[in-house]
Amino acid sequence: MALNFSNCASVLITGASRGLGLQMIKQLVRSAERPGKIIATARNPAAAQELRQIAESHTGIHVIPLDVVNEASIDTAVKEVATIVGAGGLNCLINNAAIHINSDLNSVTRDAMMKTFESNTVAPLFVTKAFLPLLKTAAVAGEGGGMGIHKSAVVNISSSLGSIQLNWGEGAFFKSYAYRASKSGLNMVTRCLATDLESDGILCTVLHPGWVRTDMGGPDAPLSAEESISSLLSIISGLTDKDHGEFLDYTGKKIPW
Amino acid sequence: MALNFSNCASVLITGASRGLGLQMIKQLVRSAERPGKIIATARNPAAAQELRQIAESHTGIHVIPLDVVNEASIDTAVKEVATIVGAGGLNCLINNAAIHINSDLNSVTRDAMMKTFESNTVAPLFVTKAFLPLLKTAAVAGEGGGMGIHKSAVVNISSSLGSIQLNWGEGAFFKSYAYRASKSGLNMVTRCLATDLESDGILCTVLHPGWVRTDMGGPDAPLSAEESISSLLSIISGLTDKDHGEFLDYTGKKIPW
Ligand SMILES: NC(=O)c1ccc[n+]([C@@H]2O[C@H](COP(=O)([O-])OP(=O)(O)OC[C@H]3O[C@@H](n4cnc5c(N)ncnc54)[C@H](OP(=O)(O)O)[C@@H]3O)[C@@H](O)[C@H]2O)c1
Ligand SMILES: NC(=O)c1ccc[n+]([C@@H]2O[C@H](COP(=O)([O-])OP(=O)(O)OC[C@H]3O[C@@H](n4cnc5c(N)ncnc54)[C@H](OP(=O)(O)O)[C@@H]3O)[C@@H](O)[C@H]2O)c1
Repeated sequence: MALNFSNCASVLITGASRGLGLQMIKQLVRSAERPGKIIATARNPAAAQELRQIAESHTGIHVIPLDVVNEASIDTAVKEVATIVGAGGLNCLINNAAIHINSDLNSVTRDAMMKTFESNTVAPLFVTKAFLPLLKTAAVAGEGGGMGIHKSAVVNISSSLGSIQLNWGEGAFFKSYAYRASKSGLNMVTRCLATDLESDGILCTVLHPGWVRTDMGGPDAPLSAEESISSLLSIISGLTDKDHGEFLDYTGKKIPW
Repeated sequence: MALNFSNCASVLITGASRGLGLQMIKQLVRSAERPGKIIATARNPAAAQELRQIAESHTGIHVIPLDVVNEASIDTAVKEVATIVGAGGLNCLINNAAIHINSDLNSVTRDAMMKTFESNTVAPLFVTKAFLPLLKTAAVAGEGGGMGIHKSAVVNISSSLGSIQLNWGEGAFFKSYAYRASKSGLNMVTRCLATDLESDGILCTVLHPGWVRTDMGGPDAPLSAEESISSLLSIISGLTDKDHGEFLDYTGKKIPW
């Protein structure tokens, strides 16, 4: 399936300063069938040099500050985004920002558990809640039937490490209490959102980007950011009702909870 | 299967001041095949009148203070328990204490998410870590083969509301972002513990007690505390290797993650 965002008027991505968030921006801006408005958010845009360069050399891309664990920052961002998207609302919210703190049985701390849950689980919930008015507007304003990015969608970037089922045998090789629990929590939150927002026509899903060479994924990961994101964006652009409330990897394969 | 704790020298239960924790104590003390040492913990034993009365009228029951979110309280409790159990170690740790804060899409707060995660997910992890030396001792000292409460077991009380899979259709009727995410997190933490503690011979499992008439379950629940706990204790007393890392309800039926 090819990347086709031409029916999606606006996309917002959190954590676009580097890694997979930045890669999404890169591939969206250069795509022939790109979304009308690309909103790249970062907690500190001044420090996100590559992102700023992309924004300077392309049109229809807006870089705005958004620290996903900061309520005031979220409120300010929502106001700015409302002005950018206007009457069309926000079609696609991608909650991508996350942190990882090493935490095996010996090294795990209460603080690592709490901080990771705050960034990876609680933040996507409250970012989504804050953008709900704009997402609801888009669900009504978007043209066509069914659910998807032509109407309104919340895409939460999770990880296969958040699968409780797969955390067994070989799948349990990678140890991280804080990160794993936060992503299982995110999966639950997304499933709650899916049942709550279905009547508004807002599609909600969790996606696993694969193991990717970023600061978080490290140099040994099998996928480049380009490979992961070209596949992931295709999946996002093709989301339909049947993907609502599901957990899919970057190739579209279902992952067990 | 009948309740048989006669091969289990010591059991510790958190949150034994009321509800299901108190009910476990009640049924264990009056059982013919009871564990040698019953350690009932509560964050404020002075206020747990019924528990204190039970302790006064039975032998082999020890009431000690334990606030599961307080590191100093945990450290003090471990020292007391070490003296109580001696060279046999601690055979069975039941992490039962938990909180529930109403939190549907409209009412959920960051604070409710964080507090609930702290009590229901992080606390069982750190209580377990603190008691690990005593659990390891029991795994070695306990007689017989295989895993179970005759050797060493960590039983985390979760909820079917923590099942991401079941949170759909009719199963999504009960809305609670904070509680649901905390129990999915606890399920993940338990699965991590199961893979990490298997080589020490410590069985780890998550159990759902059913929907029960307690302060938390409310008056409309179908099960009495007595019904839930007599069944749950049978399941606990019969845990074997095949239950390691699993999620079971009070009748022994597997619950999907
Ligand atoms: N890489 C992998 O192998 C892999 C595998 C599975 C899932 N994932 C998931 O994919 C997503 C992206 O990961 P990545 O590999 O790109 O990670 P990364 O290279 O570590 O980048 C993380 C991004 O999140 C941002 N961020 C963190 N906390 C933030 C906050 N409070 N507010 C705003 N932004 C914040 C960072 O911003 P700063 O630059 O300001 O720090 C950065 O842009 C994450 O959800 C991750 O869990 C990655
Ligand atoms: N009842 C149900 O229908 C149901 C269904 C599924 C799962 N569960 C689970 O079953 C377990 C017991 O629930 P319940 O119905 O008995 O709940 P409950 O009636 O509300 O009792 C909760 C218990 O946890 C204790 N507790 C809470 N925070 C604590 C802390 N920081 N330190 C020490 N103790 C603490 C409380 O102590 P205080 O008296 O000091 O507050 C109380 O003893 C929980 O894990 C719950 O999630 C219950």
